Amino acid sequence: MIKIGLIGAGRIGRIHGGNVAAHAGAALAAVADALPKAAEALAKELGTKAASLDAILSDGSIEAVMICSPTDTHADFIEKAVKAGKAVFCEKPVDLSSARIRKCLAVVEKTGKPLMIGFNRRFDPNFAALKARASKGEIGAIEIVTILSRDPSPPPIDYVKRSGGLYRDMMIHDLDMARFLLGEEPVEVHAVGSSLVDKKIGEAGDVDTAAVLLKTASGKIAQISCSRRAAYGYDQRIELHGAKGMLRAGNVFPTTVEFAGASGFSGDPVLPFFLERYAAAYRAELDAFLAAIKKRAAPSPSGEDGLRAQLLADAATKASQSGKPVRL
Amino acid sequence: MIKIGLIGAGRIGRIHGGNVAAHAGAALAAVADALPKAAEALAKELGTKAASLDAILSDGSIEAVMICSPTDTHADFIEKAVKAGKAVFCEKPVDLSSARIRKCLAVVEKTGKPLMIGFNRRFDPNFAALKARASKGEIGAIEIVTILSRDPSPPPIDYVKRSGGLYRDMMIHDLDMARFLLGEEPVEVHAVGSSLVDKKIGEAGDVDTAAVLLKTASGKIAQISCSRRAAYGYDQRIELHGAKGMLRAGNVFPTTVEFAGASGFSGDPVLPFFLERYAAAYRAELDAFLAAIKKRAAPSPSGEDGLRAQLLADAATKASQSGKPVRL
Amino acid sequence: MIKIGLIGAGRIGRIHGGNVAAHAGAALAAVADALPKAAEALAKELGTKAASLDAILSDGSIEAVMICSPTDTHADFIEKAVKAGKAVFCEKPVDLSSARIRKCLAVVEKTGKPLMIGFNRRFDPNFAALKARASKGEIGAIEIVTILSRDPSPPPIDYVKRSGGLYRDMMIHDLDMARFLLGEEPVEVHAVGSSLVDKKIGEAGDVDTAAVLLKTASGKIAQISCSRRAAYGYDQRIELHGAKGMLRAGNVFPTTVEFAGASGFSGDPVLPFFLERYAAAYRAELDAFLAAIKKRAAPSPSGEDGLRAQLLADAATKASQSGKPVRL
Amino acid sequence: MIKIGLIGAGRIGRIHGGNVAAHAGAALAAVADALPKAAEALAKELGTKAASLDAILSDGSIEAVMICSPTDTHADFIEKAVKAGKAVFCEKPVDLSSARIRKCLAVVEKTGKPLMIGFNRRFDPNFAALKARASKGEIGAIEIVTILSRDPSPPPIDYVKRSGGLYRDMMIHDLDMARFLLGEEPVEVHAVGSSLVDKKIGEAGDVDTAAVLLKTASGKIAQISCSRRAAYGYDQRIELHGAKGMLRAGNVFPTTVEFAGASGFSGDPVLPFFLERYAAAYRAELDAFLAAIKKRAAPSPSGEDGLRAQLLADAATKASQSGKPVRL
Repeated sequence: MIKIGLIGAGRIGRIHGGNVAAHAGAALAAVADALPKAAEALAKELGTKAASLDAILSDGSIEAVMICSPTDTHADFIEKAVKAGKAVFCEKPVDLSSARIRKCLAVVEKTGKPLMIGFNRRFDPNFAALKARASKGEIGAIEIVTILSRDPSPPPIDYVKRSGGLYRDMMIHDLDMARFLLGEEPVEVHAVGSSLVDKKIGEAGDVDTAAVLLKTASGKIAQISCSRRAAYGYDQRIELHGAKGMLRAGNVFPTTVEFAGASGFSGDPVLPFFLERYAAAYRAELDAFLAAIKKRAAPSPSGEDGLRAQLLADAATKASQSGKPVRL
Repeated sequence: MIKIGLIGAGRIGRIHGGNVAAHAGAALAAVADALPKAAEALAKELGTKAASLDAILSDGSIEAVMICSPTDTHADFIEKAVKAGKAVFCEKPVDLSSARIRKCLAVVEKTGKPLMIGFNRRFDPNFAALKARASKGEIGAIEIVTILSRDPSPPPIDYVKRSGGLYRDMMIHDLDMARFLLGEEPVEVHAVGSSLVDKKIGEAGDVDTAAVLLKTASGKIAQISCSRRAAYGYDQRIELHGAKGMLRAGNVFPTTVEFAGASGFSGDPVLPFFLERYAAAYRAELDAFLAAIKKRAAPSPSGEDGLRAQLLADAATKASQSGKPVRL
Repeated sequence: MIKIGLIGAGRIGRIHGGNVAAHAGAALAAVADALPKAAEALAKELGTKAASLDAILSDGSIEAVMICSPTDTHADFIEKAVKAGKAVFCEKPVDLSSARIRKCLAVVEKTGKPLMIGFNRRFDPNFAALKARASKGEIGAIEIVTILSRDPSPPPIDYVKRSGGLYRDMMIHDLDMARFLLGEEPVEVHAVGSSLVDKKIGEAGDVDTAAVLLKTASGKIAQISCSRRAAYGYDQRIELHGAKGMLRAGNVFPTTVEFAGASGFSGDPVLPFFLERYAAAYRAELDAFLAAIKKRAAPSPSGEDGLRAQLLADAATKASQSGKPVRL
Repeated sequence: MIKIGLIGAGRIGRIHGGNVAAHAGAALAAVADALPKAAEALAKELGTKAASLDAILSDGSIEAVMICSPTDTHADFIEKAVKAGKAVFCEKPVDLSSARIRKCLAVVEKTGKPLMIGFNRRFDPNFAALKARASKGEIGAIEIVTILSRDPSPPPIDYVKRSGGLYRDMMIHDLDMARFLLGEEPVEVHAVGSSLVDKKIGEAGDVDTAAVLLKTASGKIAQISCSRRAAYGYDQRIELHGAKGMLRAGNVFPTTVEFAGASGFSGDPVLPFFLERYAAAYRAELDAFLAAIKKRAAPSPSGEDGLRAQLLADAATKASQSGKPVRL
């Protein structure tokens, strides 16, 4: 039974906290939040107690923390937690500044404590199977990775303004998947972005529709396209083209029901958003974190993975703004 | 918090007990089994205590029981439990003899206690959506119900011998679904059955491959086919043909991954068996049982539903053996 | 170049005549019809001449005829044509009376001339592939054949009245496919039928919604369901369940286009009716007829196939009307 | 009846010639080829006569020519034909040099004769329906066009060397589709290419795997990826993401047959190559050419479309080679 402290009682904290509470191999020891009432409410819901961050960090029986607080607190809390001897799971990103990430990772390294970054899509059963089958060589060498990623609707404009922009906030997940699936580091980043969904996003200096081309040193190609809006739900698809064939993972639907009438055949919209689509991924992610702690193995995705995805997101942002590809 | 006693610590008891233990609105108060060690093992796994059937029935704080013991104990245990004032959920069937079922239902009625029968497929999200959409009139009047049902592999021959035969043991689920979806009682049952999968099943006087035609008084038709073996998993499909169109619910697959290679495109086999396919259905079934208790409403499917499905299974058995249709 | 005379310039005659005219190995020598104007119009359209039936039969250069005239002329015309030394392709059925069919086949046999019956579905590329793959043993022994067959809308009531009824007019195609795919003769026929689509059909003594169960001597099962109306087009599906797996052939759609919007995903209705769905089948059927003539081989499906399908349709009609299964 | 002369008796000439010969509104008057024997063989096959190019051009009864000769003859033959008063259909590209194309189009313009370029994919029933439905506004404003295009296997290295490279030889079709579907001219072209399929292609200075990003002035984005090899056939898919939803057109398969066995479900590979996949497109393309001639309307795609696609292919080639985006 690994005792875990949850830091951050918001939407994603509720997911991770709930999964910990329901896990046979873990116990949710306490919930902390900058707003004590939020911590108390979630603690009650999940059958545990609220506590301050400091109380969690100084509780020797708590082996690990899950950081689900706002982005600008991640790096500080990671540092505090590893110094306090905790294993750390942190939601992406470590920080919007890659310099700050590097500094934080150096602190982590010094403590030798494990740090896992919440790139949840790696744990989606569909994408995980895609990766596993590609790794077994089912399609030979991977040549083209295609990722289509669309959110159901744009976030509030206030969120957009402090998000770091589409590439760092949204596409970073797809950039991580591209790295994960290419099995090589991209060395060249091309990006085009537009504001087609919501003018205010453009006025805030961000884009809501974007596409990226990545190339690795050996010539493998990844193409990613993102939109902040899809009328039909949360669209998440990945396709791998390889020397011996193709592997793809499609969307997940609430039911298999099909209707046929005079205007044709129809089926459900895709699952609405990440809480539904990635529910199984969040559980598998927790399994992986707990397993790494138990085996004293380095968790994956690592802090380094977090850094590299951020560097790609930075490069895509720069390429999109300058109209020139960025070499890494 | 509704306190529940589990009777029967076998495969299906483990499912229901686990769902009760994880449910926010219920508590698993105790587990009973004819084999005390089995009760103890499951109780430990689910964080509760083992107890005798009598102890459960005489515990006034336990509001309901879930009967998951062998079929030949169902009717007795239902009677005991309702007499002890419990709400009862019982796995299908109430009994292999319809006379015994009628007697049992009469006892239940006298006590006024709620009895729900475990026709889990009604709660499958796909089939439930099918029913809901048909009930809303999406396809107009239903005219033909088609049910394809295949188990992955036949049960042990010893099980077959005391199962009541394919129609009562396996097809009873499909017969219940036909009633549920037709919205009318079948009045005519035609059946043909063969032993094609395993000779021993035929030697035991049973069939392993069978098809049934049902007709209601108003002329609606249902066709069901069953096989005790499907190389590709647990095949469970339903299709409704109506005046304004068609609705169908297909199989559920572990992942959406597709592979394409020189020999074409390929996808996963279907989920292996009922524990996987109907995991969500078992949870929704428990929700419905608890909701009925809470609202003091009659649960559905009812004991009467259990009886009617059994009468259809009896009729199908007779029709199959005699080669003549049975009128109800 | 095999010279062919077309008898009957109606809808199906136009299809066969057009295919002959476009075929590299055949020439459409003449078109005959009881209405000379119809023959002339079609002849002009297809770049050939109109002629009387007698003129076609006495023209020694014409090697074969295709009989596409009304059903009640088929048997007479077949007899005349084979006596005149022609190879004959005849649209189904040979006659609505099996006694008349037997008499006709005896005449054909005496002449030794080839007779092929137009069960076009055997030549549909999808169903033909299904049969070929099953014959190769891909799914082991076939155990259950499931055929779903729906017309887009019922024929005019006047047609219904002289059609011989749904089983002989519509389901005969499905009964032929069941024989073709089972690879064994059914010995037991169960049928239920209703008039749900159009009251007038019921008043005319026919059904518009029907299902049949067939069983062969070795215990294989076929289930067929038919409706005279499907809101979404001409629905034609076949599925084979075998010892080693399942093979199925689905509908054919005008395009692969899919739309996704707020209410979900949607695709085309199926192709509207047999002229569109079976266009390729009619061409392949002609290929088979010409190949049989060229190789002096017995064409398939044969007159015997026509007779046996008719006997099954007769049995289904009787079973449906009497409510009792018919043994063959 | 429009009389047509065919110039070029190779693989694609055979397709167009065959379609003309079978067309109710056209007649194949003659076939010319640099190799008279090839012209004679194809003329015989299609029931017409062989003739020299000059004889065709000077035959006043021939209204139009279809140019299917090698690429380096296209511009010369177009000029000759329009000067001779013919309507011209020419296979893509007009020339590998855009300067030469411009000169040729100027000649065409002076004569006022119609010129249509063979971008066959616009006439594929699936892609044509995609365009038509998008044009009707089904998905609102188009924001992202995604085109996946894979040939089954690379052409001979000798062909590669004189092909103008992947972007001009293969991707030009996709670039035309991107223009066609965006409804706006791309102003920015990013490209990455690699030689992953066949080293010899790389040694010849070409790529076999490539991806392109296009952006229009209003910010719409198109992404295209191409490979010269796909283990599973000729992969041709297009997807449109718009403000109100998504429209996509998938691959076409020989049959609808699905198999299910212990290793899962499987279906056919896609149609092998363009002759099969675009058979219907070539027929519809001819219809459009003949209709334009009949109505004296400007045919589409026009010579200008040919030029613009070529300029995009040039830009993609340059962007790929230089690693820098090209502005148009």
